[in-house]
Amino acid sequence: MAKRTRHIKLGLFLIVDGSHEAAWRHPDATSARGMAFKRYVDVVTTADRNFFDFVFLADTLGITSDNLPMISRNARSECYDPIVLLSALAPFTQAVGLVATASTSYNDPYQVARRFASLDHLSDGRAGWNVVTSANRFEALNLSSDDLPPHEARYRRAREFVSVVKGLWDSWDDHAFVRDKESGLYFEPSKMHVLDHRGEFFSVRGPLNIPRSPQGHPVIVQAGSSEDGQDLAAATADVVFTAQDNLADARDFYAKLKARLQRYDRGEEDLIIMPGIFPVVGRTQGEAEDRFESLQSLLHPDVGIPFISRLGGLDLSGLALDDMLPSVIDATNSSKSRQKLFVATARRDSLTIRQMFMRFAGARGHLQVVGTAATIADCIEEWVSTRAADGFNVMPPLLPSSMNDFKDLVIPELQRRGLLSSAIRTGTLREKLGLRHPPDMSHVYASDRPDELPLHSRIEP
Amino acid sequence: MAKRTRHIKLGLFLIVDGSHEAAWRHPDATSARGMAFKRYVDVVTTADRNFFDFVFLADTLGITSDNLPMISRNARSECYDPIVLLSALAPFTQAVGLVATASTSYNDPYQVARRFASLDHLSDGRAGWNVVTSANRFEALNLSSDDLPPHEARYRRAREFVSVVKGLWDSWDDHAFVRDKESGLYFEPSKMHVLDHRGEFFSVRGPLNIPRSPQGHPVIVQAGSSEDGQDLAAATADVVFTAQDNLADARDFYAKLKARLQRYDRGEEDLIIMPGIFPVVGRTQGEAEDRFESLQSLLHPDVGIPFISRLGGLDLSGLALDDMLPSVIDATNSSKSRQKLFVATARRDSLTIRQMFMRFAGARGHLQVVGTAATIADCIEEWVSTRAADGFNVMPPLLPSSMNDFKDLVIPELQRRGLLSSAIRTGTLREKLGLRHPPDMSHVYASDRPDELPLHSRIEP
Repeated sequence: MAKRTRHIKLGLFLIVDGSHEAAWRHPDATSARGMAFKRYVDVVTTADRNFFDFVFLADTLGITSDNLPMISRNARSECYDPIVLLSALAPFTQAVGLVATASTSYNDPYQVARRFASLDHLSDGRAGWNVVTSANRFEALNLSSDDLPPHEARYRRAREFVSVVKGLWDSWDDHAFVRDKESGLYFEPSKMHVLDHRGEFFSVRGPLNIPRSPQGHPVIVQAGSSEDGQDLAAATADVVFTAQDNLADARDFYAKLKARLQRYDRGEEDLIIMPGIFPVVGRTQGEAEDRFESLQSLLHPDVGIPFISRLGGLDLSGLALDDMLPSVIDATNSSKSRQKLFVATARRDSLTIRQMFMRFAGARGHLQVVGTAATIADCIEEWVSTRAADGFNVMPPLLPSSMNDFKDLVIPELQRRGLLSSAIRTGTLREKLGLRHPPDMSHVYASDRPDELPLHSRIEP
Repeated sequence: MAKRTRHIKLGLFLIVDGSHEAAWRHPDATSARGMAFKRYVDVVTTADRNFFDFVFLADTLGITSDNLPMISRNARSECYDPIVLLSALAPFTQAVGLVATASTSYNDPYQVARRFASLDHLSDGRAGWNVVTSANRFEALNLSSDDLPPHEARYRRAREFVSVVKGLWDSWDDHAFVRDKESGLYFEPSKMHVLDHRGEFFSVRGPLNIPRSPQGHPVIVQAGSSEDGQDLAAATADVVFTAQDNLADARDFYAKLKARLQRYDRGEEDLIIMPGIFPVVGRTQGEAEDRFESLQSLLHPDVGIPFISRLGGLDLSGLALDDMLPSVIDATNSSKSRQKLFVATARRDSLTIRQMFMRFAGARGHLQVVGTAATIADCIEEWVSTRAADGFNVMPPLLPSSMNDFKDLVIPELQRRGLLSSAIRTGTLREKLGLRHPPDMSHVYASDRPDELPLHSRIEP
């Protein structure tokens, strides 16, 4: 236990050209190279050699707005399919975990289970799946639906989806494939398990047509922080990525989510909580502030209202940039936890929409720290030592340059403080994160207790 | 025209451990290494450097039988997801096309369009999509369905699916993404085209969230040879992969399919017909026959009935290995063209089921040639010079060894005869295959003729 929590976990939120909304316009940005695969290779190999446990690819199934002034100024209007991109990047890396987003609302569990098992095989156990339920109507419109299902229904589907995926990952015991040329037996029939799932949303026979992968189960990441999202995470996730912008709320979130694990017979060490951090690093405080300002000054005012409206899931129609939020604002069906955070911050600090835009265009509601390596390490140390975080998903404002600042300045500082190992962690992503390796089902079938449920059923409440 | 047809096209049907049912048991097979990614790298880099236009990954969404004696002896019980595997292989190759199978019955067009556009970007224009409608009930059972939709409905859905995918690939004109740091404009709004498709099976708004890919449209391959399959191919495909085991039938198929192109305002050069060929190469006829026999002798009798039943889509229940086919045999919903070929061959040559198994366990109904490089080149030359084929999808009996035989012995012979270039073709897969580059939609929107239909609608009958 002590060993597990001593070192913080670090993810890299991989968004070309960086997490700041205007990053692509920065003189250091390599945005002119567009879809060039090499841009991703450069960033990911840097992460691979510099103590990041994983790279993390967010995703949406389409361009999530029809506001032309905004989308035509947004670098996210073009992006690779995450599983295709991470598969191509896998052979360029040796240590770093590869976490891709896939939606449970617009996929089938069989295909998702198979793709992540495939990625896990070809990366020797470094795959992770970020489970999302999709949060935007424009995704629905691309996927033959008029709108998203209601929030609660999306999460009910997600729960069943993840359960089926884990069940499929248990299709084979570890050494099922004997490939015995002499006898002609390719796999041992008793080591194959047919799932035969029949549920509310899916009926899936199985088995998966790929052997159990090196991690047994690729790592499950979950990023929804609403009540439904927290419950899904407590039941099924290995890692939670959450947007928290202050210590008090983060500690509260951390305590409640860790406590909730008991409901599912899971221990604190079974779920790693990693808020996002948006670090603007300088050799001096002044340099950091100048760097931040050089990005902020590139924000285009046309983007302000649609940005806040989309990211916060808020209906701002009829409002102008210098208006305050009205006292009553319609809740929408998506981004529940982000809505809450945006509205609370705006009310607390009496922000106009323009000010909200300036506040959220970088960190998007995550922790934002502008300062020296010592300032940033202080913050990280405080959060991890006061049970607000087990580590952070690092969202560099600008890629690749802010990432290089982070590795050159902040990482050595974290190592000096003993928060980070000075050797790159080896092994599977689970091993790097200190997570348990899920056993195969051989013990279930060997137990002579036919009333004992198979693993995948046990994760259900 | 003359230039285009002078050289034959070559695909590599990539199935580890080779196309022969018992290949994995052969002493030369590397099957003990199982899912090792390196096995695929070795084969694909060989194809890349040795005049193959593309590698071709077939696929099924699951293990397509519940017959344990068969599946537990079958190397295809484990395989990678094809798009994940080809994405990982792309950076290892420079010239060879990368064709992956994806089913139109169990996917959404938005996701398929995006994945293949992603693969096309990261491979600099070498992606191809093999369109299948799925042919096996066990795939349906894994994808929340009790059975496959009827044959005709699957193909109706496939037609709409391909049309939507092509429409999405036309979401952006070639130079839509200007990424102009100065003005802050990332893309030119007038160069984005929203599809707004509403059809029988799908409603898809668009645009795709990835720029137009290097090929404009990744190459469309189609492998169904039934009437419905031929019609889908004539309307939408660039390449047809077909099972033909004799010259007369192949010429007939070729003539009819090329003629059918006129219905869709397409020319003969717009569709390349590539039968499969299963070449067993030896330095002498005797060596080739010995090699074939060494594979045939590894076939396990337990596999015979389920193999023929599954591959041929035939109901053989109640029959024994040494029975003949009954005079009336139930047609099933899948593998229409393969059924026809299997039954016709069995009747013509009075084969027992055991003999059918021995006949089809290698080439699976494709052209099988056992002989020297000269014999095989003679056959290829005869087929391409008498309008039975524009090239072949090569199905090496055993990988990697039969592939090496083919490249060392047959390819130089084809080059000597002027059937194959002695320089590796460069450029996109379309360019290598001599196919037209589909223009973007700028001419449609610039034409001042609002009654002119966008490209994707024009491919409909």
